[in-house]
Amino acid sequence: METAGKVIKCKAAVAWEAGKPLSIEEVEVAPPQAMEVRVKILYTSLCHTDVYFWEAKGQTPVFPRIFGHEAGGIIESVGEGVTDVAPGDHVLPVFTGECKECPHCKSAESNMCDLLRINTDRGVMIGDGKSRFSINGKPIYHFVGTSTFSEYTVMHVGCVAKINPEAPLDKVCILSCGISTGLGATINVAKPPKGSTVAIFGLGAVGLAAAEGARIAGASRIIGVDLNPSRFEEGQNPFDQSMSFYFLVLVRRMTHLCLHFSARKFGCTEFVNPKDHNKPVQQVLAEMTNGGVDRSVECTGNINAMIQAFECVHDGWGVAVLVGVPHKDAEFKTHPMNFLNERTLKGTFFGNYKPRTDLPNVVELYMKKELEVEKFITHSVPFAEINKAFDLMAKGEGIRCIIRMEN
Amino acid sequence: METAGKVIKCKAAVAWEAGKPLSIEEVEVAPPQAMEVRVKILYTSLCHTDVYFWEAKGQTPVFPRIFGHEAGGIIESVGEGVTDVAPGDHVLPVFTGECKECPHCKSAESNMCDLLRINTDRGVMIGDGKSRFSINGKPIYHFVGTSTFSEYTVMHVGCVAKINPEAPLDKVCILSCGISTGLGATINVAKPPKGSTVAIFGLGAVGLAAAEGARIAGASRIIGVDLNPSRFEEGQNPFDQSMSFYFLVLVRRMTHLCLHFSARKFGCTEFVNPKDHNKPVQQVLAEMTNGGVDRSVECTGNINAMIQAFECVHDGWGVAVLVGVPHKDAEFKTHPMNFLNERTLKGTFFGNYKPRTDLPNVVELYMKKELEVEKFITHSVPFAEINKAFDLMAKGEGIRCIIRMEN
Repeated sequence: METAGKVIKCKAAVAWEAGKPLSIEEVEVAPPQAMEVRVKILYTSLCHTDVYFWEAKGQTPVFPRIFGHEAGGIIESVGEGVTDVAPGDHVLPVFTGECKECPHCKSAESNMCDLLRINTDRGVMIGDGKSRFSINGKPIYHFVGTSTFSEYTVMHVGCVAKINPEAPLDKVCILSCGISTGLGATINVAKPPKGSTVAIFGLGAVGLAAAEGARIAGASRIIGVDLNPSRFEEGQNPFDQSMSFYFLVLVRRMTHLCLHFSARKFGCTEFVNPKDHNKPVQQVLAEMTNGGVDRSVECTGNINAMIQAFECVHDGWGVAVLVGVPHKDAEFKTHPMNFLNERTLKGTFFGNYKPRTDLPNVVELYMKKELEVEKFITHSVPFAEINKAFDLMAKGEGIRCIIRMEN
Repeated sequence: METAGKVIKCKAAVAWEAGKPLSIEEVEVAPPQAMEVRVKILYTSLCHTDVYFWEAKGQTPVFPRIFGHEAGGIIESVGEGVTDVAPGDHVLPVFTGECKECPHCKSAESNMCDLLRINTDRGVMIGDGKSRFSINGKPIYHFVGTSTFSEYTVMHVGCVAKINPEAPLDKVCILSCGISTGLGATINVAKPPKGSTVAIFGLGAVGLAAAEGARIAGASRIIGVDLNPSRFEEGQNPFDQSMSFYFLVLVRRMTHLCLHFSARKFGCTEFVNPKDHNKPVQQVLAEMTNGGVDRSVECTGNINAMIQAFECVHDGWGVAVLVGVPHKDAEFKTHPMNFLNERTLKGTFFGNYKPRTDLPNVVELYMKKELEVEKFITHSVPFAEINKAFDLMAKGEGIRCIIRMEN
């Protein structure tokens, strides 16, 4: 390509400081160095992790920075030593990588690459410790090695998954983070047998994807657990968001019915709001399921939900999977007999998918119409209106908002 | 058989009260009722669980009682409805059963039978709530459905495993409890890949059996962890138990060497005594193994050892298995990130073996010379001297003491 080896000037949404609206700027994107690729981003979406580090409450602030890590694009050029992908390849950027050389990459069981494991504090490329973005010669920092809120971005080759070029990037872009995280937690880690009962704690994007995984696996009962019934209605609710307060009260009273209806799209067959019961939700679930669910997947990161998700699985064979990231001071506590009675507790990171090896297969699941992706996409905005995506997330509206780079 | 359907008078070792030496008495053993079998015991061995309930410190005391649950014998007669075994069959009694009908028995993953799961408080048969043992018409109570410290005993058919009649009962009798528990914890639950590193916490009979399981699985490093190096020497120590105090001090100083030597028999390649280090044993193990062991098996029941056994496994793929029974007030605590970093914690009961289905195969492992049983048998006494077995265990001497019923 004519741009290969040259600096590209393009538009990027720059976060100049924590919590302030992004600003569309013209940035200079340096050519990819050894083992790097430069990617033209076509679609990106907003994930809660972007918002979390953009707010930078408690984390190390790294600004100015270009956020964004769920996306789909096309390789524009590659740096020295890159042989796995070539210009023109369709790729999904991934916030955590796969070097294919370290003990984790060589283990069939792990995806926690030693070299390219997620690092939220680093704002530069690992090759030379420098940023590839600049404005007037001043560096703009990277985010988790992806920085997809830019028309062009530079990534380590280990952080891009080459996918089927026929897959629509405006849909499969959302598979590069949250949806795969929830999906893989169920399919790869919880592994519910056909006909089993699965509880999903937390019905955000990740939890709904975990429910979708349970649906694909053939679970016969999928019980959604959330403290906030409105999350359950999100996007799928037959009642409009603009309903009057009086109507809203009515709807809340109809929670079970309404949630039941809207949950169907994601495979949920039942819904439990722990606030509706005056006994522990573990007990509620045990009573609903003759002793406990077969599998549970925890997608909130709340320590109490983690303990509940573990204790609600059936003795003898129950498996609980932790997905949600806990508070740094959280402590998981339970009576060890809960383990001795043949329960299993596992944690997962990115649904145990190895980014380069496995993501192409997740895309194929969609291409074969086994995985439904469209239902997760509730909004879409042009790049110029990227801050609207932040507003929607702040209001808790929708599941995924696609940001279109070209129109 | 001529005794079928009749009361059998035979010798049994009766515990009249907690902690007092057993007394060999003539007892009457009633014929087996529906779904029961009467078994002539040929060999039995003493397990710590017998001692624990015989001491009855803190448990419900059930006396007079006939203890014993590790044994081998031959079916003398069967009750109504019994079709799986017949008189003359060689069997191992098991303290926990397999009804083959309940959800646990029907699950491929569980061995925690709803009907016949271990019950240490019950001293009677589940069929009619009565004891089959009596002296002068007064009932003598059963223990965990087996009561093998008797020349004849009655059991539910779900609590006996029919084994290869060519298997020597004086050896394979020890497979009916502790050895299978440790072995199965490693082989069935931890499942160490060939060439992996396994840590075993607690080097009593169960822990040594877990190490044997790791050896059979082909682990390349098996690290024994125990606070008491003398347990490691037990039975396998080249130095005699009667050594002088001075010599003992010398040996203690030679701990690593000596333990290393004696551990070999059970597959251990290295030994760690947490007391020898001024940092957490998790850290010691991580430093020895480039980040953590691949598998760990906890066989002490001590809550700190449980936490250590979990936290010492490698992120990305490590699996820890809890075997030891914890104190009723124990609390398992860890930072949930230890799970999120792709570690797995599982508990097991009786090594996840289904007693009737799987124990015959464990016996075959021995017959094929893959499993070494002899090295666990350190002592042998005639039935009349059964209290010697209790003395040996109280002194912590040896691993298993066989009690010979006939001579």
